[in-house]
Amino acid sequence: MSEALSARSRELLESARVGHLATADQYARPHVVPIVFVYEHPFVFTPIDAKPKSVEDWHDLRRIKNIETNGRASVLVDVYDEDWSKCAWVRADGVADILVKGDDHRRALDLLAAKYRQYEGMPLRDAPVIRVRIEHVSQWHG
Amino acid sequence: MSEALSARSRELLESARVGHLATADQYARPHVVPIVFVYEHPFVFTPIDAKPKSVEDWHDLRRIKNIETNGRASVLVDVYDEDWSKCAWVRADGVADILVKGDDHRRALDLLAAKYRQYEGMPLRDAPVIRVRIEHVSQWHG
Repeated sequence: MSEALSARSRELLESARVGHLATADQYARPHVVPIVFVYEHPFVFTPIDAKPKSVEDWHDLRRIKNIETNGRASVLVDVYDEDWSKCAWVRADGVADILVKGDDHRRALDLLAAKYRQYEGMPLRDAPVIRVRIEHVSQWHG
Repeated sequence: MSEALSARSRELLESARVGHLATADQYARPHVVPIVFVYEHPFVFTPIDAKPKSVEDWHDLRRIKNIETNGRASVLVDVYDEDWSKCAWVRADGVADILVKGDDHRRALDLLAAKYRQYEGMPLRDAPVIRVRIEHVSQWHG
């Protein structure tokens, strides 16, 4: 990572309940979605779970097609506060791939299930997982 | 817009205090930042204001350089709730440009100053404004 993660940024990555994942297609058209995620250095993991999606087959999700054709990804975690001096954000840019099996896949699912109790009622089973390997961090906080 | 904006999505765009803007560079590397913004059909406007930035000259901001070389932009407004059935999001994809003068520029600054009282203490003056012309809307809410 080109910039050291501050303690506040690490805390944000570890505790935030929602983040935002940006990808882009082969024509450089950007796409952004809200994500649940877990952070475990040097990775961010986010699942394709059973929450409603715009398509039935996960292979058709734009984030998936974008990652398959262009592995670059940007994950932002931020806190908005009406006192703008209390706003904070950390952005992790890197390379994404899609896991459907293996140790990292299982590890990610376990971390996600531990972080989000919602998965007790919506089991992840063998849900695909997007893995972003962080290469560069940017951050700001007051 | 290829999908009609629901009443809930319109309310989100009109009332949300923070959104997320994704752009991409000429190599299709995505970038995402939190933004304050105003929505006025068919536009989203977001300023380059005096909040702390990673660079001193606004021309060097990645969002600006990306828009100058690749006008595609994606704006997401979402609400996270621990009851996932109450989550909501609306995404507006379109083409962005940068305003530094003119009627739309002045109109955007007026709308921003009216929405965000924080600008009383951090005047926008003639701040540059990113204008996203919405071409496609996607949305989900419970």
